[in-house]
Amino acid sequence: MDSEQFRKYGKEMIDFVADYWDHLRDRRPVSDVQPGYIKDLVPNEAPEEPESWDAIFGDLNKVVVDANTHWHHPHFFAYYASANSYPAIMGDILSAGLGSVGFTWNASPSMTELEMTVTDWLAKMIGLPNVFLNSDPGPGAGIIQCTASDATLVAVLASRARAAKVHAKEALGEISHEDPLTLINPDSRLFPRLIAYCSEQAHSAVDKAALLGGIKMRKLRTYKENDYGLKADVLAAAIKEDRAHGLIPFLLVATVGTTPTCAVDDVKALGEICQAEGLWLHVDAAYAGSAAICPEYRYLTAGVELVDSFNFNVHKWMLVNFDCSPMWFRDAREATAYFNVDPIFLKHEHQDKTIDYRHLQTGLGRRFRSLKAWFVLRSIGIKGLQENIRNQCALAKQFGELVTKDERFELAAPVHLGLVCFRLKTSNDANKQLLKLVNDDKRIHIIPAQAHGTYFLRLAICSTKTTSEDITFAWNVICELAEHI
Amino acid sequence: MDSEQFRKYGKEMIDFVADYWDHLRDRRPVSDVQPGYIKDLVPNEAPEEPESWDAIFGDLNKVVVDANTHWHHPHFFAYYASANSYPAIMGDILSAGLGSVGFTWNASPSMTELEMTVTDWLAKMIGLPNVFLNSDPGPGAGIIQCTASDATLVAVLASRARAAKVHAKEALGEISHEDPLTLINPDSRLFPRLIAYCSEQAHSAVDKAALLGGIKMRKLRTYKENDYGLKADVLAAAIKEDRAHGLIPFLLVATVGTTPTCAVDDVKALGEICQAEGLWLHVDAAYAGSAAICPEYRYLTAGVELVDSFNFNVHKWMLVNFDCSPMWFRDAREATAYFNVDPIFLKHEHQDKTIDYRHLQTGLGRRFRSLKAWFVLRSIGIKGLQENIRNQCALAKQFGELVTKDERFELAAPVHLGLVCFRLKTSNDANKQLLKLVNDDKRIHIIPAQAHGTYFLRLAICSTKTTSEDITFAWNVICELAEHI
Repeated sequence: MDSEQFRKYGKEMIDFVADYWDHLRDRRPVSDVQPGYIKDLVPNEAPEEPESWDAIFGDLNKVVVDANTHWHHPHFFAYYASANSYPAIMGDILSAGLGSVGFTWNASPSMTELEMTVTDWLAKMIGLPNVFLNSDPGPGAGIIQCTASDATLVAVLASRARAAKVHAKEALGEISHEDPLTLINPDSRLFPRLIAYCSEQAHSAVDKAALLGGIKMRKLRTYKENDYGLKADVLAAAIKEDRAHGLIPFLLVATVGTTPTCAVDDVKALGEICQAEGLWLHVDAAYAGSAAICPEYRYLTAGVELVDSFNFNVHKWMLVNFDCSPMWFRDAREATAYFNVDPIFLKHEHQDKTIDYRHLQTGLGRRFRSLKAWFVLRSIGIKGLQENIRNQCALAKQFGELVTKDERFELAAPVHLGLVCFRLKTSNDANKQLLKLVNDDKRIHIIPAQAHGTYFLRLAICSTKTTSEDITFAWNVICELAEHI
Repeated sequence: MDSEQFRKYGKEMIDFVADYWDHLRDRRPVSDVQPGYIKDLVPNEAPEEPESWDAIFGDLNKVVVDANTHWHHPHFFAYYASANSYPAIMGDILSAGLGSVGFTWNASPSMTELEMTVTDWLAKMIGLPNVFLNSDPGPGAGIIQCTASDATLVAVLASRARAAKVHAKEALGEISHEDPLTLINPDSRLFPRLIAYCSEQAHSAVDKAALLGGIKMRKLRTYKENDYGLKADVLAAAIKEDRAHGLIPFLLVATVGTTPTCAVDDVKALGEICQAEGLWLHVDAAYAGSAAICPEYRYLTAGVELVDSFNFNVHKWMLVNFDCSPMWFRDAREATAYFNVDPIFLKHEHQDKTIDYRHLQTGLGRRFRSLKAWFVLRSIGIKGLQENIRNQCALAKQFGELVTKDERFELAAPVHLGLVCFRLKTSNDANKQLLKLVNDDKRIHIIPAQAHGTYFLRLAICSTKTTSEDITFAWNVICELAEHI
């Protein structure tokens, strides 16, 4: 494909994408395909000779689109929102078109500097203190990670390294090696004694980060009467108990907007304990963080002045498509120092004057992810983003009222932001049956969750195309199917 | 931006990208900007009100493109190639446009199934045995990771988990906790005794993976007379010595195509030792792996039948843009089991019949990266990809001959694939001076490396636009500047 062909076919692809969005409503949110469907559609070896673009283009609907789950369908209410918008797509076209790889400042100055700028913009929009800004003279920094699970893993690894360093003198004797120059030798002697904390409602990505980090993670009890948010006294008691067992508490991953019920841990009170006890405090605000751009939801970042690292998924609720997950460090120099590898082929003359983002992520290469955020923030503006969040919260409220008015149903947790947790008042099994009926029916798509043994259904407002009428439609589908139970 | 505007502006962006490529030669490969340049060009807060697309579009050249490093410029010879092509850009447009997030099969069936298909295509193209295919009934699997550093980290973590399990009975007593139901409790007791190996020539990402994995990594000696490839007897001696010190050898990361000199470790002989000694063998073929699609370079995958995991960056040398880094597991069920988290909201009815790729990567969310590989493989065909590799190897050979003919210069290692390592025959300092002159001059861009204390310059063929004339041009620039030393 030469440049003239790209001008032709690229524009056809623009129309293909616009047509997809214009006609999304004609589809159902999930497809009918079964595992292995592709074997009948795609050969099992790559072609020796080039194929025409028309042949490839002709396969797109049946191989890719018809067999997909449509995250932006107005009747897709599963998981949490994963954002998208036309300006965001524009950013990805440019990122792909330039094809830069920005592991150091030198390898792509504009990738580094635009990311520094955009993460500062976002920090200010949600009310983070100046210490987290790249433009602040202190050691704080903001970076764009792929997604919240990556940010949590980075927080686990950085806090683990800090704990290993702080407590090194408590470690048992280690087996040494006579050739230190050729040995990478992280201090893992204390790992079996390190313990981190999170709420039992925290995302499974937190559990996974603990497994990957090789450290214990204790999942702390929450209470329904406290809307499933983690309270400070529960953390304080756990720390005390674990210290008595000879363990070393070193990290709390607090959640602002849990996946099951959008619960909010008490970051301010928890942060005071973390400071007093020397724990790293990471806040996973993956979904809810975006809402803090509205003054009425600014309570979501209360206590952030006590935090060591903070993350939210811009790609969830700020009209930027996956992946775009900013993470801020109170002290990026510290995180950098733990995992610093600096081979001669990555050195450059500006190293001491700016950030090399490779130090603040697990991998090396990186894409130009700030472009799409920059385009969205400028093209839509803060007011437009606030309007989208307020609109989606209002739709959740509308659905919550429908649940409350129907005596067969109850809310499983208070409606918070764009999420409604609801259930038939009868048994868990009845609700499992209802979920199956709804998802087999395929007019709408939702997922379940549970808390303290109670199984419930979640309806999350996900698509920018969802209207008040779609909420009524979803409720009618659920009521119709509930009749069969 | 509504769909009509997207049709208009999206097509302007297609032309912007095509114009960029058509006029790449008018630029220099690196820019003149200094750290902080963006402060004069971009405000320090996001706008409240939306801006017009024309205003945003008007900023692109000065903020983004003029301040970038042009990885596809015909005179960019740094690092290794990072590929791109028009069909690849088409794939990223569609991926962004659909905006699916494919952490489970259900969350995006076509994302999962096309990735299974494309990784099988790639495995066959480079000659991997059937055990690595998704279509094989066994437990092997292929997945697309972001990049080689992620694949190496996954290999470190999976092999560490296997070692902790296999050697659990050797561990010292562990501090237990009375509430196992709420405790994530990976077994880290043996970490201080675990030791992995790699060549001293391995990429810094291998060192970093060891630091992040919390395990020792011993960097093994190579020999110039062996072209800096790792030999089996060196590994055997290290294992023996380390066992005598009470350490537990568990992993070898072998490199096929090192960053300094494109050296190749002896995978077949090393693999036999790994099998005999119970070590996981991961092969990092980030750069060189692509060349194995040519029969004459198939020696690059010799011994792969002995490998536990294998990875190369399709985005380096197969005309697919960053990120696209397939990784194959001999036993994906095993890797999955170590880090399995399976919350209710990610469960689905097809779990036992297919792959949920979230289990084989560190993070959760994932993009539709197989699209761009599928487009490139079909649009260019295997023969076209082979032709590109052969052409770039011939250009490296041409440059190597120019070096050899000039009595002031010498090769620092044999020319291998698309890389030439060369130096002035005098001192390291003289070569450092030469590098600075070349990169300050900015007509071409290269980076240095070193091996066994010898500093040298690397010229890697990176751009599909580089011609024989560009090689002569680069050589003339180097000779001209060498006159000043």
